Amino acid sequence: MDKLHIVKVGGNIIENKKNIQNFLLDFAKLRGYKILVHGGGKEASKISQKIGVPFQIINGRRITDAANLDIITMVYAGKINKNIVGQLQAIQCNALGLSGADGNSILAKKRSPKPIDFGFVGDVTKVNISFFKILIDQGITPVCCAISHDGDGQLLNTNADTIAASLAGSMAAEFEVTLSYCFEKNGVLENIEDESSLITKINLKTYKSMIKKGLIHSGMIPKIENCFNALRKGVNQVRIGSPKIINEAVQYTKIEL
Amino acid sequence: MDKLHIVKVGGNIIENKKNIQNFLLDFAKLRGYKILVHGGGKEASKISQKIGVPFQIINGRRITDAANLDIITMVYAGKINKNIVGQLQAIQCNALGLSGADGNSILAKKRSPKPIDFGFVGDVTKVNISFFKILIDQGITPVCCAISHDGDGQLLNTNADTIAASLAGSMAAEFEVTLSYCFEKNGVLENIEDESSLITKINLKTYKSMIKKGLIHSGMIPKIENCFNALRKGVNQVRIGSPKIINEAVQYTKIEL
Repeated sequence: MDKLHIVKVGGNIIENKKNIQNFLLDFAKLRGYKILVHGGGKEASKISQKIGVPFQIINGRRITDAANLDIITMVYAGKINKNIVGQLQAIQCNALGLSGADGNSILAKKRSPKPIDFGFVGDVTKVNISFFKILIDQGITPVCCAISHDGDGQLLNTNADTIAASLAGSMAAEFEVTLSYCFEKNGVLENIEDESSLITKINLKTYKSMIKKGLIHSGMIPKIENCFNALRKGVNQVRIGSPKIINEAVQYTKIEL
Repeated sequence: MDKLHIVKVGGNIIENKKNIQNFLLDFAKLRGYKILVHGGGKEASKISQKIGVPFQIINGRRITDAANLDIITMVYAGKINKNIVGQLQAIQCNALGLSGADGNSILAKKRSPKPIDFGFVGDVTKVNISFFKILIDQGITPVCCAISHDGDGQLLNTNADTIAASLAGSMAAEFEVTLSYCFEKNGVLENIEDESSLITKINLKTYKSMIKKGLIHSGMIPKIENCFNALRKGVNQVRIGSPKIINEAVQYTKIEL
């Protein structure tokens, strides 16, 4: 089986011009098949404020009405995605930006309005494996933003961590997949203020006890759940760490079942 | 040679939800290879106003500073492009949205700041024919927005009519290309208020005399120049008309050398 790297880059890295440049240099150096997934919620919130569109975030998830979906589509698929693609092209990485609608790449179902009506938010139902294969076979590097579609003309806001996990899980049928979540920390930390408190390994058992102890909470819970989901679908390796993990022998948090 | 239809759809059709839906239904029905090109300047101007970014238009061209380039990228490559792609997917047209950076599809050179400094505006230098061929061979319909790139990390605002003409001209080396400019009128009109005053044919000779008489002016001049450029590069047929020209035997303005 060929190897495939799927890398998700987080909002705090995207926000900072220097950080994203450095990250993309590392990403471009990655040999073999690769796919990049990005979010951009903070930038979307800034634009919402500028345009004067109110937004609400519940459990770390944005309530996405039609006006907020427009903003997300502009920011994720437009500004952030195209700048990443342009920068990758400049360093000889033939990137191609995608929303889930493009090439019917990522299908989703609008989330039930109960118990919470998140609006135009989607849960991934299908990844178009053959489409991604065509692209990477051609030496093209897909760059996926956090937007899926329902196949019926509706774009849907979809968490970037989940897009990355779904993509990794689906591609695992045909590739030996490494899924890397890169963000501004060295990995999952016991103490969020202390980079040296890195937890180097989390499995289902230790995860449960860490949640009980309150060591893992808020946004880290769905992120790690996504990691477990990817592993259950056959993803070879799942890592949470700084962008350095892509090319250097630095420590990170390894997630295992 | 295989046939290839390149259709450019104008701003006034894009703006109106019903009109764009109808247009896309017609476009999706087009058999064989096809590529869609769209602009979106009016929507971009609306967003500029909402965000409070001033903009200036000289000779029908937007002066594109960094803030306006961000807006254009959000509106063209994000909001408009992804909604068109989503709608086409819903009617069984496997669309894929592109800026010129995506797949290195359309390269351009930043326009000289003299005599007028248009800012981040680009003139097309190269169309990646092999990339477009790969896509259409796979049954994918490219949907190009009016953004190119310089290959060095800079996105560039590029007139959609020119993108369509450059694309058509380049693809003419390998396909029998029909280029259709669809907008809210029936074609080039002698009297812009009177749809029955359609000029059914324009060639280089009649074009010059029409300019002298003041029958052709302002935005129609660069549009027709684009048509001539496409024809000079071997495009088979160039038409200016209403969206109906795609599938119906209605009248339009035929451009010839």
